[in-house]
Amino acid sequence: MDIEQGNDGKIALSEKWPRLSQFFAKVKSTIIGFLEKIKKIAMDDPRRIAHAMKVGLALTIISTLYYVTPLYDGFGESSMWAVLTVVVVMEYTAGGTLSKGLNRTFATVVAGSLGVGAHQIAALCGEKGEAILLALFVFLLAASATFSRFIPEVKARYDYGVTIFILTFSLVAVSSYRANELIQMAHQRISTIAIGVATCLCVSLFVFPVWAGEDLHKMVASNLDKLANFLEGMETECFGEKSNFESLEGKPFLQVHKSVLNSKTTEDSLCNFAKWEPCHGDFSFRHPWKQYQKVGGLIRQCAASMDALSSYLTTFSKTKPIFKADTELLLEIQTACSEMSSESAKALRELSSAIRSMTIPSLAKCHLLAATSAADNLRTALSNDITVWETIHVAMVASLLAELVNYTKEIASSVDELAELALFKSTDSVNSALVKPKIK
Amino acid sequence: MDIEQGNDGKIALSEKWPRLSQFFAKVKSTIIGFLEKIKKIAMDDPRRIAHAMKVGLALTIISTLYYVTPLYDGFGESSMWAVLTVVVVMEYTAGGTLSKGLNRTFATVVAGSLGVGAHQIAALCGEKGEAILLALFVFLLAASATFSRFIPEVKARYDYGVTIFILTFSLVAVSSYRANELIQMAHQRISTIAIGVATCLCVSLFVFPVWAGEDLHKMVASNLDKLANFLEGMETECFGEKSNFESLEGKPFLQVHKSVLNSKTTEDSLCNFAKWEPCHGDFSFRHPWKQYQKVGGLIRQCAASMDALSSYLTTFSKTKPIFKADTELLLEIQTACSEMSSESAKALRELSSAIRSMTIPSLAKCHLLAATSAADNLRTALSNDITVWETIHVAMVASLLAELVNYTKEIASSVDELAELALFKSTDSVNSALVKPKIK
Repeated sequence: MDIEQGNDGKIALSEKWPRLSQFFAKVKSTIIGFLEKIKKIAMDDPRRIAHAMKVGLALTIISTLYYVTPLYDGFGESSMWAVLTVVVVMEYTAGGTLSKGLNRTFATVVAGSLGVGAHQIAALCGEKGEAILLALFVFLLAASATFSRFIPEVKARYDYGVTIFILTFSLVAVSSYRANELIQMAHQRISTIAIGVATCLCVSLFVFPVWAGEDLHKMVASNLDKLANFLEGMETECFGEKSNFESLEGKPFLQVHKSVLNSKTTEDSLCNFAKWEPCHGDFSFRHPWKQYQKVGGLIRQCAASMDALSSYLTTFSKTKPIFKADTELLLEIQTACSEMSSESAKALRELSSAIRSMTIPSLAKCHLLAATSAADNLRTALSNDITVWETIHVAMVASLLAELVNYTKEIASSVDELAELALFKSTDSVNSALVKPKIK
Repeated sequence: MDIEQGNDGKIALSEKWPRLSQFFAKVKSTIIGFLEKIKKIAMDDPRRIAHAMKVGLALTIISTLYYVTPLYDGFGESSMWAVLTVVVVMEYTAGGTLSKGLNRTFATVVAGSLGVGAHQIAALCGEKGEAILLALFVFLLAASATFSRFIPEVKARYDYGVTIFILTFSLVAVSSYRANELIQMAHQRISTIAIGVATCLCVSLFVFPVWAGEDLHKMVASNLDKLANFLEGMETECFGEKSNFESLEGKPFLQVHKSVLNSKTTEDSLCNFAKWEPCHGDFSFRHPWKQYQKVGGLIRQCAASMDALSSYLTTFSKTKPIFKADTELLLEIQTACSEMSSESAKALRELSSAIRSMTIPSLAKCHLLAATSAADNLRTALSNDITVWETIHVAMVASLLAELVNYTKEIASSVDELAELALFKSTDSVNSALVKPKIK
């Protein structure tokens, strides 16, 4: 390779060290990609930036415990607990912060008192007995509290509280063996934890609060809208004037329900946090949050049915039999389908807007009545000819089964891939291993 | 009410204070119910008891730092950090403990060094300037680290590490303002945290270890078995000799796939933990855990299709049209269905047992070939009569749509319930509110 002296320094660099310049270009594109990702995350929900600033703010406030001399003299080393509390208690939603803050405070007070009690009992047994008894107490309490975390109700609402319970009890019980002024220490710690929790709650509830309840409310309404979008797409793309069943693959309306399918985890945690929130906006303290979970569950079931329909339509449009309503029966079915999808879509939109505006959904019933009567008419039309009726039913089961066969095939090929990646033994070598002596 | 003196003391009590005896009976049944629940949780997975004991054991071991005088003299108050580490780092699976332990250690070291660096810079600016500069550093670092938790990749693997990073940096930076021997303090803390993590790891990895990877492996295999159960049920109950489509409601085989549908969260977290685990049993360190997620995703899709089929069959069996293969076409469809379900079930069983024994699934392909050819034959048979073929397709879409109408109805009635519980305004009163002046 001959090195030429270029007029432009940049060209010279890229010619001189092509790898180096490639490296810099790669670094640059990685950084730009990363920044764009960050920007997208921030733009998707600007409250995320606010949350980051709020955590910074709460920590800065709490660190004044160190900077202001009279405060520090009051709490001393225990100031640390306030910082620790702020870091672990601050959550994205107000309900999350409340849940963790109250769990922490309550668990600390209960476990602290129990710890002091354990110390009093153990102290009666002399120095050696004390250590043994304390160790026994710690073992028993930690083991039983840990086991309680496997109870689903405890896990859902008090998991963090149980951790803090174990932590506080162990710390108080164990350090009581060394500390001389146990009560004063416990008092200092509880005060600093209370200060930390109070700071978090103030920042979380009063500075641009993010309400888990409001998010849950909006999420359910927007999921209803997604279902309506699917049905509206069905109406225009499949039963509208210019519609045909061809080329449905990749149409966006067939994907719109997918995000609903995996909404359970988010919904459950929002509901769990919403229960802790005080009244805000249109929501009272005892707002029926559980009912949102119920609605959400039904929405997911509906989305699962849409998934079946969507994958059927995609397979169907691939084989490309042009859909023409050339017999009377077909025309009848098509009209009924169009009616069912448009009326159901209207009902879902009505339900969604009723939730948003918190008014009683009165029009949804009319739309559903129309949709149901279309379904009934269809059933009557189809069941007139008993052979067609039966054939349709059985063919329907057969077609769904054929879909299962396809999925099974996909599963089989991904398991094959796994077998290859994980170096599964072939059955032959297993058989021969049974014959040959094993060599290790 | 007249009080009679009974011969039996017990009878006398229940007669004298009927409420009190009712209360005791209720307490008794509550306690028995609770104990039975606990017993069930423990029997479902006895490793849970082992885990609870392991946490107790780790805490007892670490508390010797307090009891043994020479150890305590070495670490002093910092011993607390070892206890704290054990409580928060011990997780159910070995991978979980490793993930948290390594996150904690690494984040502590990095943030501790940064904190010392921040202190050195701030110390150059005089006492007042130091406090302001430290507060600024804490704000900036806490805000940006908190924001980084919204990046999905960070959230999935390093969430705990980021928390500890913020915590350690804040504690070191802020307490450096007061502490005189910062380096010694940092050293003590890091050592105690390391001791805590090491204790957790030893207990978690060497005392009855629970491997997330092994659980994931078994879970995928057992989910495949559940799908096979569903198809085997189809074969016997719907296409077998004594089968009919009546009274399918409530049959257990139609419910067996349900638990698969919600397995995503568990699977994701097991996979995440499995990646941290060292080689164990038949699993190497770089075992392709991601592939299990891929297989799992396909399994869930298949289960969703089963859900559609299952709800179709349930609705169908309610209307009770007796299924008799009285035409040639129907007989053909039925035979194909029987073939498809039994062969797919066999393929799935083969895949599941191949995963369990970690051998290459060789027989699955033959079964799938048989299932696919049955599906193809069916398609040919149906498409011979173009009108029947088209009617079936359109009726299928119609029937799936009718199912959606049913779900929409259910959603509507649960939203009505919500409107009632949450005291939604009726639209009339909204209209009249626009006319009338609002009274608050």
